[in-house]
Amino acid sequence: IAKEVAKLLEMKAQLGGDEGKPKFVLKTPKGTRDYGPKQMAIRERVFSAIISCFKRHGAEVIDTPVFELKETLTGKYGEDSKLIYDLKDQGGELLSLRYDLTVPFARYLAMNKVNNMKRYHIAKVYRRDNPATTRGRYREFYQCDFDIAGQFDPMIPDAECLKIVHEILSDLQLGDFVIKVNDRRILDGMFAVCGVPDSKFRTICSSVDKLDKVPWDEVRSEMVGEKGLSPEAADRIGEYVQLHGEHWGLIERLLQDPKLSQNKLAKEGLGDMKLLFEYLTLFGITGKISFDLSLARGLDYYTGVIFEAVLLQQENEHVEELVGVGSVAGGGRYDGLVGMFDPKGRKVPCVGVSIGIERIFSILEQKLEASEEKIRTTETQVLVASAQKKLLEERLRLISELWDAGIKAEMLYKKNPKLLNQLQYCEDTGIPLVAIVGEQELKDGVVKLRIVATREEVNIRRESLVEEIRTRTSQP
Amino acid sequence: IAKEVAKLLEMKAQLGGDEGKPKFVLKTPKGTRDYGPKQMAIRERVFSAIISCFKRHGAEVIDTPVFELKETLTGKYGEDSKLIYDLKDQGGELLSLRYDLTVPFARYLAMNKVNNMKRYHIAKVYRRDNPATTRGRYREFYQCDFDIAGQFDPMIPDAECLKIVHEILSDLQLGDFVIKVNDRRILDGMFAVCGVPDSKFRTICSSVDKLDKVPWDEVRSEMVGEKGLSPEAADRIGEYVQLHGEHWGLIERLLQDPKLSQNKLAKEGLGDMKLLFEYLTLFGITGKISFDLSLARGLDYYTGVIFEAVLLQQENEHVEELVGVGSVAGGGRYDGLVGMFDPKGRKVPCVGVSIGIERIFSILEQKLEASEEKIRTTETQVLVASAQKKLLEERLRLISELWDAGIKAEMLYKKNPKLLNQLQYCEDTGIPLVAIVGEQELKDGVVKLRIVATREEVNIRRESLVEEIRTRTSQP
Repeated sequence: IAKEVAKLLEMKAQLGGDEGKPKFVLKTPKGTRDYGPKQMAIRERVFSAIISCFKRHGAEVIDTPVFELKETLTGKYGEDSKLIYDLKDQGGELLSLRYDLTVPFARYLAMNKVNNMKRYHIAKVYRRDNPATTRGRYREFYQCDFDIAGQFDPMIPDAECLKIVHEILSDLQLGDFVIKVNDRRILDGMFAVCGVPDSKFRTICSSVDKLDKVPWDEVRSEMVGEKGLSPEAADRIGEYVQLHGEHWGLIERLLQDPKLSQNKLAKEGLGDMKLLFEYLTLFGITGKISFDLSLARGLDYYTGVIFEAVLLQQENEHVEELVGVGSVAGGGRYDGLVGMFDPKGRKVPCVGVSIGIERIFSILEQKLEASEEKIRTTETQVLVASAQKKLLEERLRLISELWDAGIKAEMLYKKNPKLLNQLQYCEDTGIPLVAIVGEQELKDGVVKLRIVATREEVNIRRESLVEEIRTRTSQP
Repeated sequence: IAKEVAKLLEMKAQLGGDEGKPKFVLKTPKGTRDYGPKQMAIRERVFSAIISCFKRHGAEVIDTPVFELKETLTGKYGEDSKLIYDLKDQGGELLSLRYDLTVPFARYLAMNKVNNMKRYHIAKVYRRDNPATTRGRYREFYQCDFDIAGQFDPMIPDAECLKIVHEILSDLQLGDFVIKVNDRRILDGMFAVCGVPDSKFRTICSSVDKLDKVPWDEVRSEMVGEKGLSPEAADRIGEYVQLHGEHWGLIERLLQDPKLSQNKLAKEGLGDMKLLFEYLTLFGITGKISFDLSLARGLDYYTGVIFEAVLLQQENEHVEELVGVGSVAGGGRYDGLVGMFDPKGRKVPCVGVSIGIERIFSILEQKLEASEEKIRTTETQVLVASAQKKLLEERLRLISELWDAGIKAEMLYKKNPKLLNQLQYCEDTGIPLVAIVGEQELKDGVVKLRIVATREEVNIRRESLVEEIRTRTSQP
């Protein structure tokens, strides 16, 4: 219904108002949103937690343009390529908006001939997907990426990426979560022993990737119906991807699987999975990590470990079984991507993680609204006010002194504002102090400082005012 | 020549490498750039100075999408509209990349029915202009905008915008600068008394705007030749725009000009200019502000005060006369823009300033290279290292403890790294401490802490390590 109403309003707006007024639609593009001051306050809290973690792990930061040459993005995203936004050909180069931060990172490494780098990058990416804004799915959204590039001993950087996801999700207190882990080599080995032809590996992988949203029956019929896989192969895949169990047990079982153990790729992947869990055990985080053969990830470029973090339904939400409320982070190893850009095919192995924060915002926004906590959207320490008329010049002189001393100060942009309105402004915006200039105070060389919370007023000598404001507004 | 070489290299790259390898061009789109870790360090310093200033003046922060409906941008930029990037029509809405942050702000105010707001917004904007990247002119570049929306007494918010530009440019220590000020009402009044037809006001304004780059003769012949203005009108404009002098004197002279003083708009503008300079005198900043009748600003939407800050050649650059090295900030009053979006034409007067930081980056980057100051690109406090082989597990255990305690720590991703390589890594990246685990230390329950700068080594009990690292790396 809401959709229909929006459509009608849009049509009405397009037809124009009563007086031949603007005929355009007053909105942001489909799947995008503005961030008002309150939303920005939440957003900055989340960014600050994430950036702290990335810096704690020694990452540098880079930035790349919002668009890339179209050909830079071609052939990297498999079936998702249709979701890329292209720019209009206005003469010159053909450009596309970036779809993620991973491909621009690989392009950056190849272009600058970088062999080793640990970097983070926080920026917006663009996907012409069906938006579901209430659930935090947008066409313009932030990704917070951390990646480690370089030739290293197996699974050490991979384990660190999982540690990072664990730290960030714990820190943000979003409730219970699980990080699913799998390996593209295990999947590919599994496809091989199930009789999937090589040419169908990636497309069958896309089908498996849907298992977190639709039941096996549907995925199976997509494989057989749309993608032309033999029913026998599909059934064999079904047996594997529906396996569950504790990680050590599952790894051992697969290592002893008569078919899988004969496959070189799968064996390699399982060996590394064992090593990964050893490192995760040392980090003390295996409690939230689950080896899951049904995890496939949509993107073409992964070559090794893949993972995805999912928030779980809260207990107090009174649902009988734990239901996923969706993915908030994902990543994996992509050892071939940089080589696709390098003129000589030089390879730089990479592993990384991407935190998607729109869903996290939605959750924190709802939490905050429920809590009725009042968020300040400015940091103003003092309002410069006057008690009588004709003191605009004095207010301007004082506020200028305060700004020059680094004090965060505001005043009302009126020649003769009423004192009551000035005090009300402090109440509304949370400004803790008022510096009041008046005829008598000017004569005495003082300023009356009012503490908004207690209504206490003290006369402060003008030359001590800055220090007094600093003391009274310093964080304990 | 450099251009030709680039063209040839591009053609060569397009023809492909020797081995039939990738045929695409490995580059960022024309007029865009990557920011590497060092550039990001400079960028974050600049942002931090600018954001401090905006917060000091009590601004909230908002964000808007990178693209808007195409019609939102239509009819706002005059002759510059041809520089707007459009997105390809892939079905659905017609979209364009934002050209500035002012129009999205006006759209935001109208859409959310906001009457009063002081906000800042720092984001990238897009212009299909001819790039001159060495001089800091890009097609993708940051704007840092501060705007005050609302019905207030004249010139108080306008004066604050100029104070902000003055604070930021002083704070960044970019050398000498001047802020030119004018008023669209004075310009329009001047055009009227010079005999410019109403319909040609905006296009003649565009011509005047070029006076900072080309001499009057050229501007005059554009007015007469391309834009069909009568030679007499052009000459009358020439007399005005070439007037110079100290602000009070110039204002008085124009107020007494027999023709201009008869024009209502010009008189209003000159009265407000007088008031503005009174407020700027109270702020103590008139020394860097110049009333300049040749300042016009390109954009259509300004309605009152306009201004532009220009960096001046440094004295030690040995040039005989002061030569502008270009505009770094600009802004003005736009009282009609929100009304263009409001369905009922409701007006919200606004004034604002936009800091363009690419040129500032270029200057600071060059300064830094010249100074040979070493910038750290990470904040890592300690490297977790080992002196013997087979201690990977111990290093992982220790680093995990440190991360969980909030210490910024790194380790080499090798099973058995050489101690020398680990110490070299600290030298290269500026990590001040090394926590070394060894067989003996493990037995004794200590960690050897090495101070990189002095090569001093001390044994620290494991339970005191976090505290010791914090103390030794806390800023004085």
